[in-house]
Amino acid sequence: MSDLSYNALHAPFGAFSSFTCGYAVSWDATPAPNSGGFGASTRLPAQQSVFAGWRRGGGAWNLLPFVRKRADRSSDFSGATPGEAVRNQDYRTLGHGDFSRRLGLASDRWTSGPFELQIFSPFEKIPDWEGLADERRKLLCAPVVTARCSADNRAGSEDIEILFGFGDTERGLRLLGDTEAGLVGFASATAYGFAARPQPGLRVKSGMDLFSSWREDARGTHLLGSEAALILKVPAGETRSLDLALAFLQQGTVTTGIEAPYYYSRYFQRLDDVLSYGLDHHGDYVAMAAGRDAELDASGLTDDQKWLVAHAVHTYLGSTQLLSHDGRALWVVNEGEYRMMNTFDLTVDHLFFELAWWPWAVRDTLDLFAGRYSYVDTIHSKDGGRSEGGIAFTHDMGVDNQFTPPGVSSYEVPNLTDCFSFMSSEQLVNWVCCAVTYAEAAGDQAWLRSKEALLASCAESLRRRDDPEPANRNGVIGWDSDRCGPKGSEITTYDSLDVSLGQARNNLYLGVKTLAAWLLLSRAFARLGLEEDARKAVDTAALAGATIMAFRDRATGLFPAVFENGNSSRIIPAVEGLAFPLFLGMDAELGDLDRRTGLVAALGVHLGAVLRRGVCLDTASGGWKLSSTSDNTWLSKIYLCQHVARSLFPAALAGESGASADRAHIGWLLSPHTRHLGFCDQIRSGDGFPYGSKHYPRGVTSWLWMPRGQAAGA
Amino acid sequence: MSDLSYNALHAPFGAFSSFTCGYAVSWDATPAPNSGGFGASTRLPAQQSVFAGWRRGGGAWNLLPFVRKRADRSSDFSGATPGEAVRNQDYRTLGHGDFSRRLGLASDRWTSGPFELQIFSPFEKIPDWEGLADERRKLLCAPVVTARCSADNRAGSEDIEILFGFGDTERGLRLLGDTEAGLVGFASATAYGFAARPQPGLRVKSGMDLFSSWREDARGTHLLGSEAALILKVPAGETRSLDLALAFLQQGTVTTGIEAPYYYSRYFQRLDDVLSYGLDHHGDYVAMAAGRDAELDASGLTDDQKWLVAHAVHTYLGSTQLLSHDGRALWVVNEGEYRMMNTFDLTVDHLFFELAWWPWAVRDTLDLFAGRYSYVDTIHSKDGGRSEGGIAFTHDMGVDNQFTPPGVSSYEVPNLTDCFSFMSSEQLVNWVCCAVTYAEAAGDQAWLRSKEALLASCAESLRRRDDPEPANRNGVIGWDSDRCGPKGSEITTYDSLDVSLGQARNNLYLGVKTLAAWLLLSRAFARLGLEEDARKAVDTAALAGATIMAFRDRATGLFPAVFENGNSSRIIPAVEGLAFPLFLGMDAELGDLDRRTGLVAALGVHLGAVLRRGVCLDTASGGWKLSSTSDNTWLSKIYLCQHVARSLFPAALAGESGASADRAHIGWLLSPHTRHLGFCDQIRSGDGFPYGSKHYPRGVTSWLWMPRGQAAGA
Repeated sequence: MSDLSYNALHAPFGAFSSFTCGYAVSWDATPAPNSGGFGASTRLPAQQSVFAGWRRGGGAWNLLPFVRKRADRSSDFSGATPGEAVRNQDYRTLGHGDFSRRLGLASDRWTSGPFELQIFSPFEKIPDWEGLADERRKLLCAPVVTARCSADNRAGSEDIEILFGFGDTERGLRLLGDTEAGLVGFASATAYGFAARPQPGLRVKSGMDLFSSWREDARGTHLLGSEAALILKVPAGETRSLDLALAFLQQGTVTTGIEAPYYYSRYFQRLDDVLSYGLDHHGDYVAMAAGRDAELDASGLTDDQKWLVAHAVHTYLGSTQLLSHDGRALWVVNEGEYRMMNTFDLTVDHLFFELAWWPWAVRDTLDLFAGRYSYVDTIHSKDGGRSEGGIAFTHDMGVDNQFTPPGVSSYEVPNLTDCFSFMSSEQLVNWVCCAVTYAEAAGDQAWLRSKEALLASCAESLRRRDDPEPANRNGVIGWDSDRCGPKGSEITTYDSLDVSLGQARNNLYLGVKTLAAWLLLSRAFARLGLEEDARKAVDTAALAGATIMAFRDRATGLFPAVFENGNSSRIIPAVEGLAFPLFLGMDAELGDLDRRTGLVAALGVHLGAVLRRGVCLDTASGGWKLSSTSDNTWLSKIYLCQHVARSLFPAALAGESGASADRAHIGWLLSPHTRHLGFCDQIRSGDGFPYGSKHYPRGVTSWLWMPRGQAAGA
Repeated sequence: MSDLSYNALHAPFGAFSSFTCGYAVSWDATPAPNSGGFGASTRLPAQQSVFAGWRRGGGAWNLLPFVRKRADRSSDFSGATPGEAVRNQDYRTLGHGDFSRRLGLASDRWTSGPFELQIFSPFEKIPDWEGLADERRKLLCAPVVTARCSADNRAGSEDIEILFGFGDTERGLRLLGDTEAGLVGFASATAYGFAARPQPGLRVKSGMDLFSSWREDARGTHLLGSEAALILKVPAGETRSLDLALAFLQQGTVTTGIEAPYYYSRYFQRLDDVLSYGLDHHGDYVAMAAGRDAELDASGLTDDQKWLVAHAVHTYLGSTQLLSHDGRALWVVNEGEYRMMNTFDLTVDHLFFELAWWPWAVRDTLDLFAGRYSYVDTIHSKDGGRSEGGIAFTHDMGVDNQFTPPGVSSYEVPNLTDCFSFMSSEQLVNWVCCAVTYAEAAGDQAWLRSKEALLASCAESLRRRDDPEPANRNGVIGWDSDRCGPKGSEITTYDSLDVSLGQARNNLYLGVKTLAAWLLLSRAFARLGLEEDARKAVDTAALAGATIMAFRDRATGLFPAVFENGNSSRIIPAVEGLAFPLFLGMDAELGDLDRRTGLVAALGVHLGAVLRRGVCLDTASGGWKLSSTSDNTWLSKIYLCQHVARSLFPAALAGESGASADRAHIGWLLSPHTRHLGFCDQIRSGDGFPYGSKHYPRGVTSWLWMPRGQAAGA
């Protein structure tokens, strides 16, 4: 990865916060507003300047290009011409070729001459949160990001200074040493800040204009100013490092509906205490990050793939929110720019990553869906039939820190046929897929046993949504929830794509995923000793497979995206559902299914045929298009389907649909429309414009690419 | 006041928050960003839409013009063209002539046909906060604003609906009834919201587009949406009211340096509880506001003056912040857009209003200045003399919720000669003026006695800053604090005006104010039985008077603004310092001074001469210019000097410098540059452009205009 200008999130685990940087805002004639900096619970990255760089012998500063166009706010005080430019500009921002960058799984590193900036966002495998020692929990959920600035001046004959800081136009920055003698740094009120420990040659600097000294006190500060930095002298002939902690804090109850504070608030009530803790454990965090980096480095993935994985994981971590409720952890992943909470069609995709790192989070989320965010509905058919439905699950658990009431999502409203309609059937399928995958991957038989009745209800609900009359069933969802109202119909997670993926009923993508759910149910029932149910589940999977096969165009070998209305869109997510049995190593079951229906082989043929320019490869960019009839394509789902293809249908990846597609996908994320937003999901396939799902966690489906042993977490 | 488009702050007492509205953002082709809405701890008004209006028979809504240009955020979800306009626009915003508005001291009222919106921001005289019963304290500091929408449909033959709500583009709005059955309304997370009690005909509405019903649940809501309102049906032939509470909440420690939560956090931990409390006490708040309104109505001021007073008080209240520390109240007034805390040169101007309403706040602030924000310095003369100085006080106590360390302000830095230099002498004068005025007005002899030694130190420090060598003294500040550094010199509060008011040394404005401080010291010393000190203080005042008189131009009868460098600027604040002896009824002392020096009469001549177009009346607008040589003029100081002129020098107000100037000053506040910002202080005299000090509390100097009995508070 030689590309330099993109924002990566550097996020503590579970703090719904990120110190985001990397986008070269200084290079752009029309810079994006979301330059980066400290962002807590934000829709998009923050809008601050980040100052990091070095100078030699008191000359001009060389700064990484993270500096916004600056205006000296002193004109607000002095009555001078508004927006007056800063008086001094004794710095330059580094250009292409002046520095290098390397993104690791849990780090980001910029090097320019003798200067290096590293930011660490470590995380660790947590098999059981509640089982951890308290000190360990504190270490893992402290809302702190670790960083280090350093310079190697061993070959130099002049002193070097290195600098790290930020500018927050809305706020004066307080000097931490004023209240904590052991901290050298700055903070914005009680919310966020950065600090180092005192060391020789370290000084503070702040003001309306960081690069001027005509208006500062004897310490180098002006507390009214909104730019602040630490400066460390690195004498000629020496090497020095500035170890930094970057911290966030939000006090009190942060959510409603379920009223909960952050889990970290058990340990931290003051920002200064977070900073001190972060500095005391700086080495622990750096070591933890190094472990993660080494694992990705050793994965055997291509460099492009490593970057795609790392970039996705960085953004995902910024969306995680670990709350405390009823004496236990309460897990939330926030949905990027939409900030919906534990959106189920994201949970099912985060599943594979989360099982590797924090499987209890999957379990707890499934329990909360089962206990609070499930409902029992009635259903109707296209031609006016009415019946009891069964259990289903909501799309999400709320939005913007509000947990919605039991059985209600923030997203779904009735009487629609597209965006914002209900996803009852898909979320039912998702609960089954997540539940069985969790129980199998974690080996949690006791939990599976506790869900025996619910699994049976899910199976029954799936059957009824196929058709209430057993004789009419074909294994595929055919009825709609009455929650949609008389004028509405169910949709899928692909709400914003065209009809090829939008409706739930008679949908190829959901059909194969439903089939997968039946295979998983068969596994679960077998584990529970319910052999008869297991056999029936396998049969239902085969029934679904046969149904889907019946819609295959024999001439072309292709499947239509929807088994209604003469649809002939071609879609890649035909294979998406296979990810679950694949993940669980159910090769025998897939082989058996293929023998009975021919579906698996046929899907391989389909995939190979659609992965062509002008069908499901974008004509211009060469990137994967989920649907032949929509230029809105979703990277997280591409990653998932790439994994299925690589594992089951390698032949489909001959030529440009294979490794070179990774390059195209990187190109989207680095496009001028997108590169400042962290990972984005909904992409315009021609040019990388982000249609939606900006600043989004779902890209961790790429974790599936990791070699089997590693994929399960360190 | 027939002008309609301006923002007024509607603020709870001590919550540093405001529901701001009134600016007709809908009318402007290039609307200001700060349209209004819920703002907590903001530099400038919030940027929300406020929805308030009515419709008849299900027709189009008639809304007050507080609606920003709206964009339906659903395009962020659906991948549709970004920034897509809202689908329906079945409303119109009311135009000029469609409604009337009346701003009261503690209310704001809009009437359009049968519809009325009232917002109440009551406050009450609080002689002693700590002495109040707990329930009373709770009532007075609850972070709630009271409102009422109503319609009189007695003459109507069709039903009317009335609507109140807001739109916050950054957040989904939660439905309060989901967690509190007794509340009907919406809130943004735990931070702010509005609610009513359930009543017949009341319904909720929310969504991405409030004026569309194609995407909502059975309750009329879409929780992802960022626009929300309550709608009440008013049947034909009836009258109905919708009583509303608008609430704010910030949990936990909000300040650093001195770590303190809001005082209200003793009573309220949840926003929902604030809303419930506000509704339970709706009648109390309305009655309290009515009392305030009636007092201003009965004041005998002109309508223009009443509006200027009311507008200033509304903005001031939004800057007040009542914290809790060490078991007691901790008072802060935040400095408008700058958010500096308890800026002393504002405290001295808020003094008169605060003594009328919460004199303990003045006392506590003076105690905090004395205990934490004072210092003892050394001083130097212009020609290189060095000496011990004495006690002085900082410019402020911090900024942006950070209390700075003892003896340090956020504003002052060394080595400057203008903006951001030290104000040691002026703040010393301010402490004396505030302390004696407080003790006299509140009759607090015990407090005065406790400050006897400090008052003596202040007197000694004042004398030394005149000149350390008694033989050289002339009663006027002549030396600068060494805190300014070798290259700096002290400034005055008029930091951003030209040299006519900028420097502290040999300054006409500060000279007269210093003289006033000596008169007040004489009063204080007399109260304390220190007759010799009292006599010396009077003599020093006379010495200052004689010095100032010596600089008078005998030909013109005018004083130069600065007694150095041949300055010939003409300034109105020559008379500002007289406000203090005037306020304390020290007519005898002023008469005596005049007999000894002729200064009072001479200042009257000066004022009459400068209040002419082209000197200190702006040529274009006719408004008062503080200095003949600067077009930056400050309304709060104009108000103060108007009071002095009306009381002592009515002859100076003949012609257009009198009542017609009030019209000019209203014109500034209603100019297109300024009207959305609440009260603003630093104004460009030609056209009302706000040079600075936006959204600013200091306009309450206008409280001095109130008749004597009323000025002391209800």
